[in-house]
Amino acid sequence: MTRTFLKSKLIKVETGNIMVAVLNELKAIELGISAGDRIRISKGRKHVNAIVDLSSVDILPDEIGLFEEVSMELGIKKNNVKLEIKQVPSPKSLEFIKKKINGKTLTYDEIYEIINDIVHNKLSDVEMSAFVTATYTEGLTFEETVNLTRAVVNTGDTLHLKKKLIVDKHCLGGVAGNRTTMVVVPIIAAFGLTMPKTSSRSITSPAGTADTMEVLTEVEFSAKELEKIVRRIGACIAFGGTVNLAAADDKLIKVRHPLHLDPVGLMLASIMAKKKAVGSTHVLIDIPIGEEAKVKTFDEAELLGTLFERVGEKLNMKVEYIITDGNFPIGRGIGPLLEARDVLMVLQQHEKRPLDLEKKCLELAGIIIEFSDKVKRGQGEKIAEELLKSGRAWQKMKEIIKAQKGNPNIKIEDLEPRTLSYNIKSEKSGVIKKISNKSIARIALAAGAPSVMDAGVYLHKIKGDEVKKGETLMTIYYKSNEKLKKCLSILKENPPYTIK
Amino acid sequence: MTRTFLKSKLIKVETGNIMVAVLNELKAIELGISAGDRIRISKGRKHVNAIVDLSSVDILPDEIGLFEEVSMELGIKKNNVKLEIKQVPSPKSLEFIKKKINGKTLTYDEIYEIINDIVHNKLSDVEMSAFVTATYTEGLTFEETVNLTRAVVNTGDTLHLKKKLIVDKHCLGGVAGNRTTMVVVPIIAAFGLTMPKTSSRSITSPAGTADTMEVLTEVEFSAKELEKIVRRIGACIAFGGTVNLAAADDKLIKVRHPLHLDPVGLMLASIMAKKKAVGSTHVLIDIPIGEEAKVKTFDEAELLGTLFERVGEKLNMKVEYIITDGNFPIGRGIGPLLEARDVLMVLQQHEKRPLDLEKKCLELAGIIIEFSDKVKRGQGEKIAEELLKSGRAWQKMKEIIKAQKGNPNIKIEDLEPRTLSYNIKSEKSGVIKKISNKSIARIALAAGAPSVMDAGVYLHKIKGDEVKKGETLMTIYYKSNEKLKKCLSILKENPPYTIK
Repeated sequence: MTRTFLKSKLIKVETGNIMVAVLNELKAIELGISAGDRIRISKGRKHVNAIVDLSSVDILPDEIGLFEEVSMELGIKKNNVKLEIKQVPSPKSLEFIKKKINGKTLTYDEIYEIINDIVHNKLSDVEMSAFVTATYTEGLTFEETVNLTRAVVNTGDTLHLKKKLIVDKHCLGGVAGNRTTMVVVPIIAAFGLTMPKTSSRSITSPAGTADTMEVLTEVEFSAKELEKIVRRIGACIAFGGTVNLAAADDKLIKVRHPLHLDPVGLMLASIMAKKKAVGSTHVLIDIPIGEEAKVKTFDEAELLGTLFERVGEKLNMKVEYIITDGNFPIGRGIGPLLEARDVLMVLQQHEKRPLDLEKKCLELAGIIIEFSDKVKRGQGEKIAEELLKSGRAWQKMKEIIKAQKGNPNIKIEDLEPRTLSYNIKSEKSGVIKKISNKSIARIALAAGAPSVMDAGVYLHKIKGDEVKKGETLMTIYYKSNEKLKKCLSILKENPPYTIK
Repeated sequence: MTRTFLKSKLIKVETGNIMVAVLNELKAIELGISAGDRIRISKGRKHVNAIVDLSSVDILPDEIGLFEEVSMELGIKKNNVKLEIKQVPSPKSLEFIKKKINGKTLTYDEIYEIINDIVHNKLSDVEMSAFVTATYTEGLTFEETVNLTRAVVNTGDTLHLKKKLIVDKHCLGGVAGNRTTMVVVPIIAAFGLTMPKTSSRSITSPAGTADTMEVLTEVEFSAKELEKIVRRIGACIAFGGTVNLAAADDKLIKVRHPLHLDPVGLMLASIMAKKKAVGSTHVLIDIPIGEEAKVKTFDEAELLGTLFERVGEKLNMKVEYIITDGNFPIGRGIGPLLEARDVLMVLQQHEKRPLDLEKKCLELAGIIIEFSDKVKRGQGEKIAEELLKSGRAWQKMKEIIKAQKGNPNIKIEDLEPRTLSYNIKSEKSGVIKKISNKSIARIALAAGAPSVMDAGVYLHKIKGDEVKKGETLMTIYYKSNEKLKKCLSILKENPPYTIK
């Protein structure tokens, strides 16, 4: 039996975890191998399965180009190492993706196969893109959505907290500021419920909860470390990306981004899988509605909320949803540091604390507290308020910060931005009728948030406030004059404030 | 205004023509750039727009990784060359792809934008994959199919032959052997009609027409060279891939392959664009039907044929279609050399020529001859036969071979395979009821065709023949014993002959 051997040629670039090897185009024809086919590359006892790409000039017929992931996996550090090549069948998951493209319904096993291959980097971008597109165009049935959620949970890490009641919350986003998690979690933990909260970093917004929490403490922990923290303190506020919960999700995002594809089924599965993976038994979903929010109408929000409830039911999670006003920013700061300051002001009950943020946090915390069967309906918010006013929530937050290796003695004065600043004055007198979430977010992003932690926007005037001509509406904290220029041009093109 | 400069880091690999540059992940966050975004890279007056990929380890924050295509375009041959980077808007075509994904109908301008960006390598594989998938799941309206065809023609090269009548043919494939083009074209050219035929190489079959013609002569020419040949001889039989006709098509195939996606609209547009691009006025489409052919039923074939006619009408091409029997291989040889020998036997009227191939060729040639208004309906096939029997078709083929730089004095004896051979004997006596196209194709591929030109299968017994136990059914021409082993295992698993 003839065997095929080729010489390694290192390509010192990663593909982003997917195993790819490059064959010479003519050699591939001779071997009967096409682009996208799978080959097994062996060196002694080590082997790796890779997706074939073709090259006409860079790779000679007796060579095989190895991207970083492949050479690392095989432990090959130089060129001209003899490797054995063998074609292997394409993964079964491709058949199932094709089945979805053909408008058919997938079983749990089929979905699991796709998700498992994605997690293990066995599918190319082209193949994942076809799956996401088909999920979008063909849709997912309710059953498929539930199965997808299960598959995402079962292919990622999970927390094992051994508690009967584990609570969680999630907000669909689209509202600037709105940093409720960092207030709600300490209230709930102070009440005595377990709340292992993982959050995301900003993808397109000026700050994610993980970015804001990172102003106060570390946020990147392994699943094991998080388990330890939550067992001791009852809660955490960590970055979900490091924990490898719902690992498939992070890989799919890469493919969804270029076309901004956000199929409802994938979104539901992504959110609910993360809740299930930490072991949540009770979940509150916050659905802000507004012209510029992700969800535009009340009916749409009801529909989505009901879907969340039903998926939860199938996964043994009690889900409640709350529809909130998404037409205004919540809190005064937009950007990691400025939002962290708002949170600290609420927790420390500072006299200048943003009351809209406090109000929303108490409402959410109230519902979550009522997940406990020891609390009567309608009593939750009152309990939450007591925990906040008494300083017990702040005490709990200090414990969380300390457990996550931050400084629990942080003061509001420590959170003064160290950037340049520029005040935007009102050009007329009147009442603030509207503040555009999108415009505010774009200005904060242009100012440098979230990668410049201090950058962002501070709102001096909010919904319903009166303003006189010449009074400051907002302050922009920015990194360089070039950034400010950009902020001002957004401000001109899409003014955030409507005053009447 | 701050400008961003990064140092070149050469990645000595092609991406397959798409312009891709790699940024450090953290640097990208700082610049507000995501994977899939577009940047302009400038060096002095030269610049190139590239798609951004991210890397966390190989590319340092002050570097930019350049794939081969990008560094060649910019003329950069070493590392550490200072380059200016600027984010630019994503191409409009992405909006239109998203529109198709959302199930909307695209206008000509929108389709043109997508196809033009594909031809100019401005879309990533992920983006093209999303387009192909959506074309498949959402479908294309008739109008969209016509517009897609127009866009593919208008973004590629075209031949300018200045003839009133230019004829062409196309076969949908799936039948082993079936090398009609190489007999039909010389008959038609001998009759005096212009037939600038371009064909494909094998993608998954043991031989494409271009592979078979290449046994006799060169097949790769530029559009200018083809024009010259056709003006002089009246015809050509060339490889379409080199001519850059319907250039978009070749790029889309790469993305369609991994999932074997073959949306009807894309297929129609691909075939018809190639006909339009050579200037065809009259086209014959051969639609074989059979269990193992691309088209399974008569109704399906009628529907497809009608679609071809209608698309042709919109593009000012007269299309006729013929539904043929696709249940048996046509001719006796399968593989480039063996098929070329069949063709030569027919053209030279050798006594052992495959009569089934001859019959089908005359039928097709007859219809094409009737495209001429000087020929009455029903007279074409008779004329074709005379041209073949008289040797005038062979004389024309010699002219074509010579014009394409081959040896016109080639003899049938020159086409004896120089591989090893193995006879397959019949295990019982009876009549040949069935020969599986798929099994025969798989065996010929396993034997080494088309990359080993001589390899393949020769059928001693065909449809309707009687066979006695122990008589030879077919001969396998193979390259190595390993290949023969594979052939025999396919033969066992999926026997090509059904004898009763």
